[in-house]
Amino acid sequence: MTRRIGICAPSTAFTREDAARVTALAVEHAPSLELIFSDQCFVVEGHFAGPDSLRRDAFVAMANDPALDAVWFVRGGYGAARMAEDAIALLEAPAARKIYMGYSDGGVLLAGLYRKGLGRPFHGPMPTDIRRSGGETAVIRSLLWFAEQASESVEPSLEEGRSYAAFNLMTLSMLIGTSLMPDLAGHILLVEEVSEYDYAFDRAMFHVTNALSGAGLAGLRLGRVSEVVENDRPFGHDHEAIVRHWCSRAGIAYLGRADIGHDAANRIVPFGRFSR
Amino acid sequence: MTRRIGICAPSTAFTREDAARVTALAVEHAPSLELIFSDQCFVVEGHFAGPDSLRRDAFVAMANDPALDAVWFVRGGYGAARMAEDAIALLEAPAARKIYMGYSDGGVLLAGLYRKGLGRPFHGPMPTDIRRSGGETAVIRSLLWFAEQASESVEPSLEEGRSYAAFNLMTLSMLIGTSLMPDLAGHILLVEEVSEYDYAFDRAMFHVTNALSGAGLAGLRLGRVSEVVENDRPFGHDHEAIVRHWCSRAGIAYLGRADIGHDAANRIVPFGRFSR
Repeated sequence: MTRRIGICAPSTAFTREDAARVTALAVEHAPSLELIFSDQCFVVEGHFAGPDSLRRDAFVAMANDPALDAVWFVRGGYGAARMAEDAIALLEAPAARKIYMGYSDGGVLLAGLYRKGLGRPFHGPMPTDIRRSGGETAVIRSLLWFAEQASESVEPSLEEGRSYAAFNLMTLSMLIGTSLMPDLAGHILLVEEVSEYDYAFDRAMFHVTNALSGAGLAGLRLGRVSEVVENDRPFGHDHEAIVRHWCSRAGIAYLGRADIGHDAANRIVPFGRFSR
Repeated sequence: MTRRIGICAPSTAFTREDAARVTALAVEHAPSLELIFSDQCFVVEGHFAGPDSLRRDAFVAMANDPALDAVWFVRGGYGAARMAEDAIALLEAPAARKIYMGYSDGGVLLAGLYRKGLGRPFHGPMPTDIRRSGGETAVIRSLLWFAEQASESVEPSLEEGRSYAAFNLMTLSMLIGTSLMPDLAGHILLVEEVSEYDYAFDRAMFHVTNALSGAGLAGLRLGRVSEVVENDRPFGHDHEAIVRHWCSRAGIAYLGRADIGHDAANRIVPFGRFSR
């Protein structure tokens, strides 16, 4: 049975050349999939893949299309916060029967969907990962997940029956207290970070752990912290020490590392209860 | 009557040379003041002006000292979030009779003090501003405020009897939902930003306005947005358009510009009710 995967750009634009490479990977590795790139993926307006209304409408059209099995976010960057609330308000019954996949800025939509109990959101690689060194393996990981829920695609610490959520730390920080933030009671929270100063990582860990100290998290795991921006002096604490410090202060169990990050090894994490 | 101003470093370190320049300005322009720089201002450990415990203890000692009239934060940077909660828990009666002055990362302590109703927090220039071009005028502005509450030091839009709060936008964003965040119902909120990408400014405006949409703000004013980090493409919306967009969505009245920012012109704003 063919599974049809709609691909749109809630944040920033993609290129037709890279889309063709992703399609070729699907033909080779997951022939049961049909990938449908929205033309909106290739629109550029300033920072974004088109105006807020176009990014909203492209997502809503795919989410509400009963002929699609999943909506895959082509790329992060920034922009989902400008369309997510309006987009989610326009979703209809077919949207609740879909998989949604993405990470980084895509976490804004995953959060909002999960908050409303709409569909099955997953943190996982996006088409844009094909641009990374070794990025084909990341793209194939998501393709195999769409095709056959391949268990080797999943973050290895995940336990059957437990509930999870995975976020880029800064993206999560910017959702705290907003109308898109889901209830994470009983969840194990996985966070990763990219392209931030160490002091900004520390500050966001303060923010997230302090604000979620009463949220009933079942624990927190740290993914990779990559492409750290170099400051004019060393910060003085490493990333895991920072996370232990803030988890300890907030009474959140620190459970160790997680195999997620802005890289080719980034694994798939469901929002909500994990079952194979 | 001599007013004694204690100066400490909740975030990053200062130098003795710059401290001497600030003292010389005080002697010349505000001879009724006595400036007391804590030795802790000059301690360096990694990113910070000493370990968390030292920064906490230096602040607490000055705040609790009945012989001091004010505590002035020497510099921002980052670090107050690592000591503010513990520090505020240690404050005693003399701390409630003081002025506290700073901005940028110092806003973390101002927020926590204001939340607890402790003393009179003010957004205003810090000793470190002497390093800016024309920065003596900024330092003198705070000195004259300490000495005589000079009305020309105050942000010009302030109206007698109305309540205010002023923050660096990212600092405020990282306080949303935390145990340091004050109730801003009925307040006019002034925000400024420095050294961020335009997309990060937009994202933080989404965050703050969405999260505070039900907080009963009396309005919002935009200070200066300076030293914007250049991205690989233009964002497509200017700063005031961004603020109007998010205020409109959140039902917050946008009241225009404010004369605050990371610059020599930065004016003084009280937390709470303004009276001359």
